[in-house]
Amino acid sequence: MLIEHLSIIGVGLIGGSLARALRQAKLVGRVTGCNRNEETLKQAMDLNVIDDYSMDVAEAVRYADVVVVGTPLSTSVSLLPKIAEAMSNRTILTDVGSAKGSIVDAARNILGKRINQFVPGHPIAGTEQSGVGASFAELFVKHRVILTPLPENNDAAIRLITEMWQAVGADVINLEVKHHDDVLAATSHLPHMLAYALVDCLAGMEEREEVFKYAAGGFADFTRIASSSPEMWHDICLSNQASLLESVKLFSEHLQTLQNAIEQKDSVAILKIFQRAKQARDKFAHKKLV
Amino acid sequence: MLIEHLSIIGVGLIGGSLARALRQAKLVGRVTGCNRNEETLKQAMDLNVIDDYSMDVAEAVRYADVVVVGTPLSTSVSLLPKIAEAMSNRTILTDVGSAKGSIVDAARNILGKRINQFVPGHPIAGTEQSGVGASFAELFVKHRVILTPLPENNDAAIRLITEMWQAVGADVINLEVKHHDDVLAATSHLPHMLAYALVDCLAGMEEREEVFKYAAGGFADFTRIASSSPEMWHDICLSNQASLLESVKLFSEHLQTLQNAIEQKDSVAILKIFQRAKQARDKFAHKKLV
Repeated sequence: MLIEHLSIIGVGLIGGSLARALRQAKLVGRVTGCNRNEETLKQAMDLNVIDDYSMDVAEAVRYADVVVVGTPLSTSVSLLPKIAEAMSNRTILTDVGSAKGSIVDAARNILGKRINQFVPGHPIAGTEQSGVGASFAELFVKHRVILTPLPENNDAAIRLITEMWQAVGADVINLEVKHHDDVLAATSHLPHMLAYALVDCLAGMEEREEVFKYAAGGFADFTRIASSSPEMWHDICLSNQASLLESVKLFSEHLQTLQNAIEQKDSVAILKIFQRAKQARDKFAHKKLV
Repeated sequence: MLIEHLSIIGVGLIGGSLARALRQAKLVGRVTGCNRNEETLKQAMDLNVIDDYSMDVAEAVRYADVVVVGTPLSTSVSLLPKIAEAMSNRTILTDVGSAKGSIVDAARNILGKRINQFVPGHPIAGTEQSGVGASFAELFVKHRVILTPLPENNDAAIRLITEMWQAVGADVINLEVKHHDDVLAATSHLPHMLAYALVDCLAGMEEREEVFKYAAGGFADFTRIASSSPEMWHDICLSNQASLLESVKLFSEHLQTLQNAIEQKDSVAILKIFQRAKQARDKFAHKKLV
């Protein structure tokens, strides 16, 4: 048994899928769920995702060997004091937040010396769906999970969280906290901002009905991420504010360059941008087969 | 037989797929191909997409009942004089360009009184692939084809082109030229600019290798359209310059608003934008089942 007693705080798409996968692999003894919404916990019981539950965070983590915090980032930060108070000295704590700097800072303040028990994580998986009803055991198969281990973590703690994610099919890699936040700002947080801003822009147009009616081929793909959870993305924006704003600024400069080239009918400049982008995208696609 | 003799100028993804579909439906007698690259024409012969070919535009259109111009927009405009000279008084001319204003203006100048023979069209179909090798008969099934008929067109001409697209499975709708260009600028041309600018931006980053390596879930979908043909999109940008620049400007204002909200940690404003966008996207997705 990899984990005797697992506690999932926030039984949603990620937490629910992780519990399903570990149970399916028979790598977990008991799974306790915790959520602010009892209906969700009852649903998780019905779906056989958890064994039992508590609405009280302290109670849910008290006897856990591993605690996975799967709530949106701002909730995770606000729950840390209660978790810190209730968790034992041998509990390993991890999370699944899309930005790491802010929660690591908060954890250092709240956990103090016990920061060594927190191994921050970020599974790069998910759909635009959310909730335990959308969870499934295969969510992490062949997906990357980035851990941002802290200097204080001991090897055994890092190894346990690494093995947990590998056991559900993920490819686990380690990145330094700030580096994680910069890279994710560029590849995930920025694209989400662009998709949200685009759809909001179109929805505000006079021709909004027609705009969506005649939306062309790539549009559905391009805007799919604008269907993601507003609350979750609000938290990510504020948690990764500095890196994200830097990415938005860099992008805006590139868009301005393209805009100028179109304004000036500068064919050479336009083609150069498009060709460079296509080449980079095709190289990426070739690697990932997407 | 709907069309006795069809001539396809530019035997690529769109022209090739149209020919395949019409032949499969036994609605066309003879298909003549024309392309600047003879290898493409030989490939189209091998693939049984066309019956015969000529590298000479005048020769290719001389005896055609319907001429479909499937070349990139700037090429289409540059071929119009030759087409005008060679086509008979009963030939119906149509095109597949993604912007309509510029080619309609050019056609009015070049065709003169015979502008009534030109029924402009735009099939909203395609993949990021191009070339006759990627063509397939089902490309237009359940896709929209927008026609922008001109006041000079007679009903029979519009009806023939409408029936041609309907016969290959498309849903044909009519829009006024300027309206088409505004709507497509917003829903297709702008998203392509954003995808190209984003990928070019990331490709220029110091961490480019890692950026693409750790690219998250939605990234592949979001940037797929940046793999589209640079030459084609160069032409579209310049052909629909005014509408596109207006769209880019409007988008930039929306992005700036979001950027300000993140800068000021204005949770209400951030959530409002994300919720409004998600609602619009979900409504669109519900209609289109994507």
